Amino acid sequence: MRRFDVAIAGATGLVGREIVRALERRHFPVASLHLLHADRAGGQHLFVNHHEVDVKDLSNRSFENIDVALFAANAETSQHFVPAAVKSGARVIDASPAFRLEPWVPLVVPDVNADDLDSHQGIVSSPSCVAAALVTALQPLHTVNRVRRAVVDTYQAVSANGAAAMEELTGQTKLVLEGQNVVPHFYPHQIAFNVLPEIDVFFDNGYSREEWKLVQETRKLLHAEDMAISATCARVPVFVGDSEAVHVELTEPMSVDQARALFAETPGLRLLDDPSVNLYPHPWAAAGHDEVLVGRIRQDASHPRGLVMWVVADNLRKAALNVVQILETMVARELI
Amino acid sequence: MRRFDVAIAGATGLVGREIVRALERRHFPVASLHLLHADRAGGQHLFVNHHEVDVKDLSNRSFENIDVALFAANAETSQHFVPAAVKSGARVIDASPAFRLEPWVPLVVPDVNADDLDSHQGIVSSPSCVAAALVTALQPLHTVNRVRRAVVDTYQAVSANGAAAMEELTGQTKLVLEGQNVVPHFYPHQIAFNVLPEIDVFFDNGYSREEWKLVQETRKLLHAEDMAISATCARVPVFVGDSEAVHVELTEPMSVDQARALFAETPGLRLLDDPSVNLYPHPWAAAGHDEVLVGRIRQDASHPRGLVMWVVADNLRKAALNVVQILETMVARELI
Repeated sequence: MRRFDVAIAGATGLVGREIVRALERRHFPVASLHLLHADRAGGQHLFVNHHEVDVKDLSNRSFENIDVALFAANAETSQHFVPAAVKSGARVIDASPAFRLEPWVPLVVPDVNADDLDSHQGIVSSPSCVAAALVTALQPLHTVNRVRRAVVDTYQAVSANGAAAMEELTGQTKLVLEGQNVVPHFYPHQIAFNVLPEIDVFFDNGYSREEWKLVQETRKLLHAEDMAISATCARVPVFVGDSEAVHVELTEPMSVDQARALFAETPGLRLLDDPSVNLYPHPWAAAGHDEVLVGRIRQDASHPRGLVMWVVADNLRKAALNVVQILETMVARELI
Repeated sequence: MRRFDVAIAGATGLVGREIVRALERRHFPVASLHLLHADRAGGQHLFVNHHEVDVKDLSNRSFENIDVALFAANAETSQHFVPAAVKSGARVIDASPAFRLEPWVPLVVPDVNADDLDSHQGIVSSPSCVAAALVTALQPLHTVNRVRRAVVDTYQAVSANGAAAMEELTGQTKLVLEGQNVVPHFYPHQIAFNVLPEIDVFFDNGYSREEWKLVQETRKLLHAEDMAISATCARVPVFVGDSEAVHVELTEPMSVDQARALFAETPGLRLLDDPSVNLYPHPWAAAGHDEVLVGRIRQDASHPRGLVMWVVADNLRKAALNVVQILETMVARELI
């Protein structure tokens, strides 16, 4: 069996570490694994399959003799180093937003639009966790009964912002419980025991970049440029797990039973839907699991062709898994 | 000036205590104040205007020679004792859900529908905090440009469930930070660092009672029986302050500037809307304030006649304030 020389840029970040674990867990055939710092932190190492692997500084020469470069750092790092990786002949799978909306770059959730991989030109982008979870739930409906409009409000975890954000939530929480004052650093306001309707910068149209990304990535992933989507993205004091309240308007009415039947046969999705016995998705239950969880499915009382549901996924795990699933699918399709 | 003999049923609960503080702060002309336990806890007292007042057990005879009985306990308590209070000749203002949807009982937010007080038959109901905050924001739009549909997703604080729920959030939070396991008691799942899309029991249509209450109370308060409303209500690990992502569909398009101008002259509402400098409502900022806060106002990118906004209010303070404002308005209208 062919084995691959794999580099991970941003390997010591929360998503980078999850990618390492996903490669181990799924027994991806690695010939050599090159762990790269995005931030020149120096001198770290990670354990991979019980062996210590040094983490080296990322540079334009990091990608020589690399088959696949997985980018798990921020958009700036990807913008800077992805071209060098492509030039070195590596296939790039980028978890950052840097190239997601470039028309020539496939944006892929393998369970949803794997065929888009075939047209790649060296780079494939992986979407945000909220978009990946949303399209996993929308796609089975959309395929049989076009989704005309979706209204989505999110409850997003701090871990998307890395270890510093998690430390801020921990530190502030302790201070509040001790009755002390909090001085925010990472977030503009206190995040402990609070909700902030601000994720990333704001555009002139009043939407935040996170909200607008969710709109545009969802349309691109579903090949539905005319799908009407509106979102409010809020940060909640949760470490891991993004939740979404989703209100869809379909082309024809759909019963709850029909939606459940479609979800039951959807890969990557798990139905948890019996609220009478407190069974529904929530972030603490989603943490550490691969599947997108869906529940609270009901007819929208405010729209004749509407359904309402509640979608939750482990944001770190989903982000990492999707990168590795893109990799596996490209190998299976002999695109690498 | 006339002074009133006032009883508060459920005076030691979180909302009951806030009602006492609101009466003090607003200098309501009290002749005598009778504090009543809903739960026969026995032997407590509260300080009112720096004087110790004993709390007595609630009974059917608690309301003799009482002008006004303010109920701040649960629905069962109101169902049991409100009829006795009315029979004793007291005017009742009930903060519980017990009578809110009875056709003969006015449900009132004084800034929104004070005229409904005139038809009272002894009992006036005060709505849930999320409904009171929502109609405060919808009413100024609805008056000039009928709201046809509203999609609302909530981020609700634990204090609505009383001191036991706040203690559960505190206790679980400490355990999680210490790396220990949590065994839920009050809520069906862990609430610390988690989000639960369950508030109150579920109906056969898949909506929770809290969601359905929000739909029905909003319609009754706005006299808009045909307004299409859908809601998902979720509990978040926040002590005080309910947030709502609100997506409205109007009859005609409305600009963001027009909405802001309407809000600027709405009593009981404060506009906090400049996200470019991190100015928007959030629960920590709302706590301890009377106003409903509104921000993140933008055109709905998914609907030609849509607006999106973010509404936050201190749930305890708003619940108590509304009861006292009903009382003040009834006095001003000589209904008491």
